[in-house]
Amino acid sequence: MLEPIAHIGRDPRTGGYLRDAWSAADLELREWFSGEARRRGLDLREDRNGNLWAWWGSPSRERPGVVTGSHLDSVRQGGAYDGPLGVVSAFAALDLLRQRAVRPSVPVGVACFSDEEGARFGVPCMGSRLLTGVLAPERALGLTDDDGDTLAEVLGRAGRAPRELGRDEETLATVGTFVELHVEQGRGLVTEDRPVGVAAAIWPHGRWRFDFRGRADHAGTTRLADRDDPMVPFARMVLAAREEAERRGVVATVGKVRVSPGNANAIPGLVSAWLDARGPAERDVRDLVAELARGAGAAGPESVRGADAGGAVEVREESWTPVVDFDVALRDRLARVAGGDTPAPILPTGAGHDAGILAAAGIPSAMLFVRNPTGVSHSPGEHAERADCEAGVVALADVLEDLCR
Amino acid sequence: MLEPIAHIGRDPRTGGYLRDAWSAADLELREWFSGEARRRGLDLREDRNGNLWAWWGSPSRERPGVVTGSHLDSVRQGGAYDGPLGVVSAFAALDLLRQRAVRPSVPVGVACFSDEEGARFGVPCMGSRLLTGVLAPERALGLTDDDGDTLAEVLGRAGRAPRELGRDEETLATVGTFVELHVEQGRGLVTEDRPVGVAAAIWPHGRWRFDFRGRADHAGTTRLADRDDPMVPFARMVLAAREEAERRGVVATVGKVRVSPGNANAIPGLVSAWLDARGPAERDVRDLVAELARGAGAAGPESVRGADAGGAVEVREESWTPVVDFDVALRDRLARVAGGDTPAPILPTGAGHDAGILAAAGIPSAMLFVRNPTGVSHSPGEHAERADCEAGVVALADVLEDLCR
Repeated sequence: MLEPIAHIGRDPRTGGYLRDAWSAADLELREWFSGEARRRGLDLREDRNGNLWAWWGSPSRERPGVVTGSHLDSVRQGGAYDGPLGVVSAFAALDLLRQRAVRPSVPVGVACFSDEEGARFGVPCMGSRLLTGVLAPERALGLTDDDGDTLAEVLGRAGRAPRELGRDEETLATVGTFVELHVEQGRGLVTEDRPVGVAAAIWPHGRWRFDFRGRADHAGTTRLADRDDPMVPFARMVLAAREEAERRGVVATVGKVRVSPGNANAIPGLVSAWLDARGPAERDVRDLVAELARGAGAAGPESVRGADAGGAVEVREESWTPVVDFDVALRDRLARVAGGDTPAPILPTGAGHDAGILAAAGIPSAMLFVRNPTGVSHSPGEHAERADCEAGVVALADVLEDLCR
Repeated sequence: MLEPIAHIGRDPRTGGYLRDAWSAADLELREWFSGEARRRGLDLREDRNGNLWAWWGSPSRERPGVVTGSHLDSVRQGGAYDGPLGVVSAFAALDLLRQRAVRPSVPVGVACFSDEEGARFGVPCMGSRLLTGVLAPERALGLTDDDGDTLAEVLGRAGRAPRELGRDEETLATVGTFVELHVEQGRGLVTEDRPVGVAAAIWPHGRWRFDFRGRADHAGTTRLADRDDPMVPFARMVLAAREEAERRGVVATVGKVRVSPGNANAIPGLVSAWLDARGPAERDVRDLVAELARGAGAAGPESVRGADAGGAVEVREESWTPVVDFDVALRDRLARVAGGDTPAPILPTGAGHDAGILAAAGIPSAMLFVRNPTGVSHSPGEHAERADCEAGVVALADVLEDLCR
């Protein structure tokens, strides 16, 4: 099902995908989306925040639609399914509704949210956060990528209008219900032995940047006693994150590190590390971060001078998403409709999604998961069997038919 | 004294230098060197390995010269003095000899060695190692920079002949004695309260690459118990390096790290870290590296599968330089001549230098150090007072005059 876009942004060395928001690959994927919408006679719109909407029928404030979709960007060296499966399945489910000669009582939309992964600017779900207003446009526009380019510059180069960014009442009013289909990022459905499941809740999750500052110096001539080497407190933080996460029943990950200047023969002056932390309970995640910041010498998760080896530690929250409990009635309805004879299993998830952002903004939202045999995600090894993907499309079509009856 | 080249390769944000070998900045510095040679009527030669030689007189196998000089490339975000001070002082000392109307009995040369820092390809003293044959040209040509370009490709683009690389008997035969002036990378001369000193020995030192392999996966949905996160054993190695170095009386530094794929919301699949280790005794440095490799799960400092969290650890030696004791007679002669009334202090150093490579190859070599008030090096904070630099030039001229009498 994903063959038409399988080549876009694929790293031939690893088989992983490089689909940063607003990169050439992302622009090509947007073109593909437009083509799919055109081919089906759908009404294509790009909202002020770069999200794409393809409508069958004309939604309005008075007659909001049922929307399905996901995103097309990827984490760096990510897999083929995370995001695209939801978009491709959305178009396929719409085709199935038409084959079934369904005449929806409300408009049906296919959505593609912009920059869901946050690979480029560090903030995930950027498109849906801007749309709903939980991310301030001034803050978003000042974010920089690895080249030091701001989002404002990048949007300008892509022919978009950075000044238009921000909460978009008009677009939000067109979305009556949102259903996102996604490859499962875990093995819950393997355990349940079912191809399709429904999301219960999204764990609270956030991302924090730790800047450990030290004094750059010569690796051969500086005595250990004279060093202020930020690599050492950084390493302590990595180990403490693992220990504290185990103790509190949450997960914590350091997946991105920048060492400056990065010479093999010099003590670094700065180590920047990104901590991702999530768990069932908000309090435990918050406590973990506070504990790590304290341990690293910061008095709290804000900019403060630390005590470790005389260095300074700065901890900044880059994003935070409180727990999202999906609409229970909608969730149970999906489980009934998508499950066939036995209701589909209802699973929690540690991953953030645009559906979670919309749910938090008060839009009735739900998610369908498609079985992932290994559970591996955010990696080229991510996979779903073709038969399960097809079962996902049928389940999604059933759900849409039920919702737009 | 360094004003004419102060702008070349300078990062305006930090004041640090970016002078990778064969970069635009390096080529501009080579042009500057050629101009200085021409201006003085010296005979300019570039040897097969990219090292520059400016001769006053014609050296031969029968009549080898006295050579002084250093290098012009820098570590990334390095200071202005490490390397260039030795080249600029060499030209200035030659001018002083001419002002004094010295008529040298042997040719006098100014040398600029290629890629001393190894910032681009990971191997320091590349030019002098190739010249003396301790680095095999096949190995050098296959080294890659951060863009994945090999040295062979980079040399080709710079109009050089990669196939010519290798031990160069003809050039070596022209060097009777080598004296390198260098800013001190420590505070030995501050303690001694002297502007100029002489090198005793260069510590044995090396560079090792640790590749920690794990399994890339989703940061939110992968249980801690299911993770194979290479960041954890890497962090353990950083802390163990510090502890083991303290215990053994050596220094160990991790100044360069690459995390792949480097997503904030994904467990990495690979963490590569470069370990720099040095100390007074070879055995202690070797033992440290073996201990870290063992601790990380490798059975020895060679490619092996490790036990840590199921991941694989690969440890490769990128460079190794045994202890270099400079020629004692030459060293004492320099201390007498350069010291004025009281012999100049003789200091050990943990830094590698081209003079050490030439000494190990059997060429009588020595070094002069110029006082560094803070001791800071490989950093924009590196500094030497003007009066001390001038004292360095006078001492170098005195030494050259004595050696070519």
